[in-house]
Amino acid sequence: MDQNELKALVGQAAVKFIEDGMIVGLGTGSTVRYMVDALGKRVQEEGLNVIGVTTSNRTTAQAQSLGITIKDIDEVDHIDLCIDGADEIDTDFNGIKGGGGALLWEKIVNNASTKRIWIVDESKLVKRIGNFGVPVEVIPFGAQHVFNYFVKQGYHPVWRLTDDGAKYRTDEKNFIIDLKVGEIADPKVMAEDLIHTVGVVEHGLFLNRVDQVIVGRQDGPEVLDVN
Amino acid sequence: MDQNELKALVGQAAVKFIEDGMIVGLGTGSTVRYMVDALGKRVQEEGLNVIGVTTSNRTTAQAQSLGITIKDIDEVDHIDLCIDGADEIDTDFNGIKGGGGALLWEKIVNNASTKRIWIVDESKLVKRIGNFGVPVEVIPFGAQHVFNYFVKQGYHPVWRLTDDGAKYRTDEKNFIIDLKVGEIADPKVMAEDLIHTVGVVEHGLFLNRVDQVIVGRQDGPEVLDVN
Repeated sequence: MDQNELKALVGQAAVKFIEDGMIVGLGTGSTVRYMVDALGKRVQEEGLNVIGVTTSNRTTAQAQSLGITIKDIDEVDHIDLCIDGADEIDTDFNGIKGGGGALLWEKIVNNASTKRIWIVDESKLVKRIGNFGVPVEVIPFGAQHVFNYFVKQGYHPVWRLTDDGAKYRTDEKNFIIDLKVGEIADPKVMAEDLIHTVGVVEHGLFLNRVDQVIVGRQDGPEVLDVN
Repeated sequence: MDQNELKALVGQAAVKFIEDGMIVGLGTGSTVRYMVDALGKRVQEEGLNVIGVTTSNRTTAQAQSLGITIKDIDEVDHIDLCIDGADEIDTDFNGIKGGGGALLWEKIVNNASTKRIWIVDESKLVKRIGNFGVPVEVIPFGAQHVFNYFVKQGYHPVWRLTDDGAKYRTDEKNFIIDLKVGEIADPKVMAEDLIHTVGVVEHGLFLNRVDQVIVGRQDGPEVLDVN
């Protein structure tokens, strides 16, 4: 199976965890796209009754086109289950997210969710996270000073750009700086430095933020329970 | 002297610290307004050559109307001196800022500045900070969940509203939640909780962020050196 087939099977496996009446957080990214397709199918074929809360305007558009009811996160008082992707996951289930640029909304939805599942193909499992880079969402005002601080810290920052070379803007109109740090010795220490940096809104280190991981393997999806 | 006269004298005292050629951070608020007026006078009368970096669109408008050259913070690689107000200052020189709604840009400019002066009338000096309330800037997406968390924490949150009852928006289009906590036993503990709350961009606790305070007293401005 190629990577897309693995992702599709994982997406289909994930939606089996969604029960009638649930409020479901819907992530962002290529694997999540397959999951939302599979959820749309359940809604249409089984009449499954769910409310979706999305982590990006892209996912909102896809879900609504499939007939999935979407509410704003502030219209619900809780989220039962969040299903999202991840860019890297280490052996302690620490993750990096934000390759798709939606890390802020993803972390807010993750944080509001009772149960959290990450769906990935097996290429995302690593011993230590970091080679993917750590995306950081920063306020445009003074962003160059944040960038300079990251240089000083040895984080090898790179501006995320759009195809036409402009600085990428998140759904909240902020910038993304990708930190090309390589394997991270202690993700918690780095997370503390990032969150205390004035001008940083959020970062892509997701530590202690998942309950179950579904991995796409050649012999079928495998469910890993955290703890 | 009434409070406005005290503020005017403090503003005039503060601009004496500005030297020719400096890049100067200009805060926001009623006391700062007098300081910017006094700076404009020096620019016009003495031909003082300074570049201002402002902490709000309001201050930009005022400064430019007085002929002060303004640059964006990302057009300068450092700020020599930042002069800003404060809403409360305790005996350890911890401050609360953000009454004017500009705490994020104020903290970013403060953070980029080599030397920082706060200008206040004497009513702002307190034993322990907190009675003013702690303004917190939050991302609109999921803000109600942040508000609910603050309720749980016993922070007595209140949405900042505009005169017509809509939620106040900062220059970065975020919301402000004011925490009516009363005197804070340990500002550092609270600051740590706030900065780790997903959805919080920045908070109004300014700890260890000032080098000199100029206080408007009935017998004239007093300069307090920190350390």
